[in-house]
Amino acid sequence: MTTSALGTSVAQLSLQEDEGREIKLLNAKEDRYGGVIVELEEAMEPNAFAASLKASMDHWRKQEKNGVWIQLPLKLSSLVDIAVQEGFRYHHAEPDYLMLACWLPSRPDTLPANASHQVGIGAFVINDQREVLVVQEKSGAFGGSGVWKFPTGVVDEGEDICDATIREVKEETGIDAEFVEVLAFRQSHKGFFGKSDLFFVCMLKPLSSEIQKQDTEIEAAKWMPLDEYVNQPFIQKHGQFKQIADICLNKSNSHYSGFSLQSAKSSSGKTNIIYFNGHDMNRQSLD
Amino acid sequence: MTTSALGTSVAQLSLQEDEGREIKLLNAKEDRYGGVIVELEEAMEPNAFAASLKASMDHWRKQEKNGVWIQLPLKLSSLVDIAVQEGFRYHHAEPDYLMLACWLPSRPDTLPANASHQVGIGAFVINDQREVLVVQEKSGAFGGSGVWKFPTGVVDEGEDICDATIREVKEETGIDAEFVEVLAFRQSHKGFFGKSDLFFVCMLKPLSSEIQKQDTEIEAAKWMPLDEYVNQPFIQKHGQFKQIADICLNKSNSHYSGFSLQSAKSSSGKTNIIYFNGHDMNRQSLD
Repeated sequence: MTTSALGTSVAQLSLQEDEGREIKLLNAKEDRYGGVIVELEEAMEPNAFAASLKASMDHWRKQEKNGVWIQLPLKLSSLVDIAVQEGFRYHHAEPDYLMLACWLPSRPDTLPANASHQVGIGAFVINDQREVLVVQEKSGAFGGSGVWKFPTGVVDEGEDICDATIREVKEETGIDAEFVEVLAFRQSHKGFFGKSDLFFVCMLKPLSSEIQKQDTEIEAAKWMPLDEYVNQPFIQKHGQFKQIADICLNKSNSHYSGFSLQSAKSSSGKTNIIYFNGHDMNRQSLD
Repeated sequence: MTTSALGTSVAQLSLQEDEGREIKLLNAKEDRYGGVIVELEEAMEPNAFAASLKASMDHWRKQEKNGVWIQLPLKLSSLVDIAVQEGFRYHHAEPDYLMLACWLPSRPDTLPANASHQVGIGAFVINDQREVLVVQEKSGAFGGSGVWKFPTGVVDEGEDICDATIREVKEETGIDAEFVEVLAFRQSHKGFFGKSDLFFVCMLKPLSSEIQKQDTEIEAAKWMPLDEYVNQPFIQKHGQFKQIADICLNKSNSHYSGFSLQSAKSSSGKTNIIYFNGHDMNRQSLD
């Protein structure tokens, strides 16, 4: 919002005063999509917030703004209801704030969606003796089932898939390992809190052999011959597990190329990781 | 919660009555991780909610519950502040509800994180004349830049990557296409709303040729010789774009295997899509 626009509005709004107090517009920043965002940080008295929000909404409607965003920190939870009464809906929340949104135009709402996916990893850690690192979990879907499975875990926000895989293997089994390749990935829907899920099966090369299992979540951990892992009745019976086991078997026979990684700069200068078939790219450059 | 546990608590709580009214515990379901979830749907008077929540929290503490979840629909936004005052934090929100959480034990909080990733796609649609489908966007990072780029878009919650790619190509350009392979993917961090991002570069085979561009977001769309696309100064200058362009070039020379797809049943009976190097898997089975 420019200073002159703000000035104009405050002048207009002084007509609406009812107790001699001037109603201040909320501080807002323009976004790149014709909308505005209000990041409230300081405490505001609920009635003052209600009046300022109402006046600001009139102002933004006159300015033909698209989306209006209000970010309220947890400590200002007393203002949530006021924004909802003014027509806002929830957009997303993190532990320390709630983001509310309101679409002003009469045409359909094109506000971007909330984060849609959880990301998980499964680690195929295989040593030179064709033994694979497996665990039994204490709780969750496999708790008490007796199934030996790959170490798995959730990729944190801000964490690279390759790093998450190394971290989970270390946390659950104490084994140090290095990332080799993404062998496959699975997309599923309606998981935790109704979100979709991407699960990456990653191959790692172990750098140590002595297991020190984590006690809270892991019932048991050991090295198991790959064929014994693959031949578990549970694995053979369930299409998805069998398919992933087959891919791992093929990989262990050296005939399968997954996606290896390489860092690359984005147009904004950030360094990101790209996963792709490095084997085929290298082969190409030798042709 | 069992009926007998509820009965015990109500008896205890009648001691706390102050105006002759019995304080009802909130209805809660057990989760698989030693916690409880309250899904409030009916309107509740704020003071009644505050009293019930306080009594319920005492009850759950005595039961040594772990996490307590409260899901509040948008229409009950007047109760948000009460839950926060009782020690709850936000967990996540969707347009029509807010999920609050509170961790009761003294040991560290192991509540699962909110969805962490946005998922996007870029569509490499190449025809038999080695022409690639490109667009210029009206707004966003490339608006007005003159750069010709692949159609891109966001994968919706609940949508398969392959379907999202076909949908975005159709929406932006009117071209019908079929999914071939994921050629590569990129993970980046601190994107929209601070979330991480997975961006899948997918190859598609066009099934039609006449472009009908979408007018709201797309400035222009056309078929462009692949070499001309790759040789754009912007593409050559930016590491990440150049790397993806090189992968697409290699793929067009038929030397590169990406991840194709196959459906598979999960252990819970859901059908999911697994993406993997189908070329190498087929080669293996022929060996």
